[in-house]
Amino acid sequence: MAKPPVLTPQAVDFPRWYQDLVNKAELADNGPVRGTMVIRPYGYALWERMQQEMDARIKDAGAQNAYFPLFIPQSYLTREADHVEGFAPELAVVTHGGGKELDEPIVVRPTSETIINEYFSKWVQSYRDLPLLINQWANVVRWEMRPRIFLRTTEFLWQEGHTAHATYEDARAYAARIHQDVYADFMVNVLGIDVVLGRKTAKERFAGAINTLTLEGMMGDGKALQMGTSHELGQNFAKAFNTSYLSGEGKQEHVWQTSWGVSTRMVGGLIMSHGDDNGLRVPPRLAAVQVVVLAIKGDDTVIAKVHEIGARLKAAGIRVQVDARTDTPFGRRAVDWELKGVPVRVEVGPRDLENGTAMLARRIPGGKEPVALDALEALIPRILEEDQAQLLRESLERRESRTVDVATIGEAAEAAATGWARIPWADLGPEGEAKLAEQSVSVRCLIAEDGTVPDSDDAPGTIAVVARAY
Amino acid sequence: MAKPPVLTPQAVDFPRWYQDLVNKAELADNGPVRGTMVIRPYGYALWERMQQEMDARIKDAGAQNAYFPLFIPQSYLTREADHVEGFAPELAVVTHGGGKELDEPIVVRPTSETIINEYFSKWVQSYRDLPLLINQWANVVRWEMRPRIFLRTTEFLWQEGHTAHATYEDARAYAARIHQDVYADFMVNVLGIDVVLGRKTAKERFAGAINTLTLEGMMGDGKALQMGTSHELGQNFAKAFNTSYLSGEGKQEHVWQTSWGVSTRMVGGLIMSHGDDNGLRVPPRLAAVQVVVLAIKGDDTVIAKVHEIGARLKAAGIRVQVDARTDTPFGRRAVDWELKGVPVRVEVGPRDLENGTAMLARRIPGGKEPVALDALEALIPRILEEDQAQLLRESLERRESRTVDVATIGEAAEAAATGWARIPWADLGPEGEAKLAEQSVSVRCLIAEDGTVPDSDDAPGTIAVVARAY
Repeated sequence: MAKPPVLTPQAVDFPRWYQDLVNKAELADNGPVRGTMVIRPYGYALWERMQQEMDARIKDAGAQNAYFPLFIPQSYLTREADHVEGFAPELAVVTHGGGKELDEPIVVRPTSETIINEYFSKWVQSYRDLPLLINQWANVVRWEMRPRIFLRTTEFLWQEGHTAHATYEDARAYAARIHQDVYADFMVNVLGIDVVLGRKTAKERFAGAINTLTLEGMMGDGKALQMGTSHELGQNFAKAFNTSYLSGEGKQEHVWQTSWGVSTRMVGGLIMSHGDDNGLRVPPRLAAVQVVVLAIKGDDTVIAKVHEIGARLKAAGIRVQVDARTDTPFGRRAVDWELKGVPVRVEVGPRDLENGTAMLARRIPGGKEPVALDALEALIPRILEEDQAQLLRESLERRESRTVDVATIGEAAEAAATGWARIPWADLGPEGEAKLAEQSVSVRCLIAEDGTVPDSDDAPGTIAVVARAY
Repeated sequence: MAKPPVLTPQAVDFPRWYQDLVNKAELADNGPVRGTMVIRPYGYALWERMQQEMDARIKDAGAQNAYFPLFIPQSYLTREADHVEGFAPELAVVTHGGGKELDEPIVVRPTSETIINEYFSKWVQSYRDLPLLINQWANVVRWEMRPRIFLRTTEFLWQEGHTAHATYEDARAYAARIHQDVYADFMVNVLGIDVVLGRKTAKERFAGAINTLTLEGMMGDGKALQMGTSHELGQNFAKAFNTSYLSGEGKQEHVWQTSWGVSTRMVGGLIMSHGDDNGLRVPPRLAAVQVVVLAIKGDDTVIAKVHEIGARLKAAGIRVQVDARTDTPFGRRAVDWELKGVPVRVEVGPRDLENGTAMLARRIPGGKEPVALDALEALIPRILEEDQAQLLRESLERRESRTVDVATIGEAAEAAATGWARIPWADLGPEGEAKLAEQSVSVRCLIAEDGTVPDSDDAPGTIAVVARAY
């Protein structure tokens, strides 16, 4: 008799599979206030690794970390008209502090363009102060009507970059640099997700931006997830907050700005890109635990050996954890590591030791085989690289096999039931986009025929990538 | 004619010196909502280095990072009577979300014992789940009537550890371990501050704790700063939230708990411990920039050379920054690095290069001398260790020279005008403590005669350390 599956199979109910995985792999719980979440240690370790990898790339792009307040005076939000229109319905408002009603209500930041511009306008005086490149790691709050853990939560963790430049061209190049060298590089090479890079249509743009660049990933069910965005803000906030500088020619000019962010939503993207019916599969370059060394039985020789192997692998630069909790049955622990998606398990029992071997189980391609103990240091780094490549290849193959070129709105809507559709933007246009929206299908992004990002919405040959989205 | 000082001298007005330094070294600005702060990149880099050093020690102590929501239902706070009494006056309350008035007001976390216990009570089932050792890095909000930047801010950044244990002894030992191995080790060996470790009196305890361990540092003006605390919570929260476990003997028992935290207040402590009339002095082990290599003039050979020296020092494992901004006068840049407290400056001009030397300026002991360029890699690490030791020595010497043993409350109050006083707790007691409080003098902590932490308030020979405090 087959054992009941640990998770609802993806093919039966993908959203329920996702929820099961988040619970059973102990990634996160729902918080007590609707739409909030508790990120549990294993889930948080994924986010910490994302932060480390992203932070290094952000610093390489010249930005410095800083921290701006959580609380924004409500009046700041109203200074940029599109911005307040976009965010007003999602705000959490503090009306009482220190036991008294406040004179002016305070908004819990939904994003920080307004408060940051208030300070940029003080710090920027001359062209010598530009570019000003700032990033912050923070929590933000957007009241969420249809919350889904990691994907849409009332509070989430993110980084938000905010920059000021002397010229339109410089701002534009920087938004593109973040899009490509920071976000795409991280998502493709660390997360192993073959994201599509494009620009948003006017309808989907960030509230207050003149252009939004996006990275869209195809999830296991063929839907799209917006994984990150990089915005050109033009001079909209600069004018609203009077952020200006004295140019080399002695003229007072408004700065040109960008903002860009990725969030804990990426954890959801990771799960839905690489997870399978047995649980998560974590790309080795991201994994906080790349290898777990398990003691099958609580025999002294075995316990000593797993610690010895753990120390050897650690010395070889591998992120390793030893599991010697032999008061919990081995089978249950093996299923748990499978659920958590640790790429490699080295399983050590008394019989293996007699042969000088261990069982090596691979989570990503699957399968298990005995290997000589003294071959582990040489073998495992090669396996981890193979696994990393396999996840990216699967992500690419899924997207290619589930994306179709279509010519009509009807075909696009139909294709979006199972994957993505590509349709010439000239044939779709804002009107077609509105019609698709009635069927919960959206234009995820506009791309050029050669896969690059078009310079404008109406560049000849622009293609709309159309899908259902999280 | 002497130049006007960059900062108000400490001897003239210490609080104003502090404020000047925070502004001119570009550490932080006041936020728009009263009591909040904007942490600027150089100030944030200090905090990031504190986080790195602390996080490694917290993980070595076996705790794992996680993240709990910012928003706590107001009803949670009221479950532990002392806790709500302590925090109610400081709460920020969200009454509106998503455009509607909320059914139950939400509190912005002032600390997370309550919400964390709600989850601990779900996660802990059996003795096998214990100890449960969790830490989070987060922002918290406590409405502040007398804000002072970094020291008392309405929003601040911190880490808060929360643990659950099977026994009183285990919880107590863990609170002491954090106090000693994490906090004291970091403050003494990285921050270079010779903190005193003791226990708080009942009056000064955390709201809801049965014992609070503290680390107190003496600032440049002789006042005390509470740099961090580690609490034994007993079973107070466990009973309020019914956090219990099935023991090995099959009995249902409440867990024993600890919580512990340090915050961005430490940045204030760093400034007031080591700063002087020329600015900050950053201990080398903490410094994000240990050495700055300055080009005196914009000559091609000089520019090439500063980059070469920077690369060489970086390769030698030194945290280095190159300053080739020769469009800003050299003198102004030198003053700026002095203000920012970078331990070593290597200043390179055309004449130095002819001699194969550079000027090496030391911020901590002061002074400047020419050194051979090829001696830098060997010399600088030794200098940095000397400087680290000097700051700690100065901190110890200040505390020793400004602490006096006294016998009466009057003498204690008098001594607190310029430093600390030590008085037998048996002679002071809660009544004497209340009298001192009328003169804004408090018992910072209780210590044993041998300098260790007493087991209880009434242990024989217990000494009260008495001071004015930030």
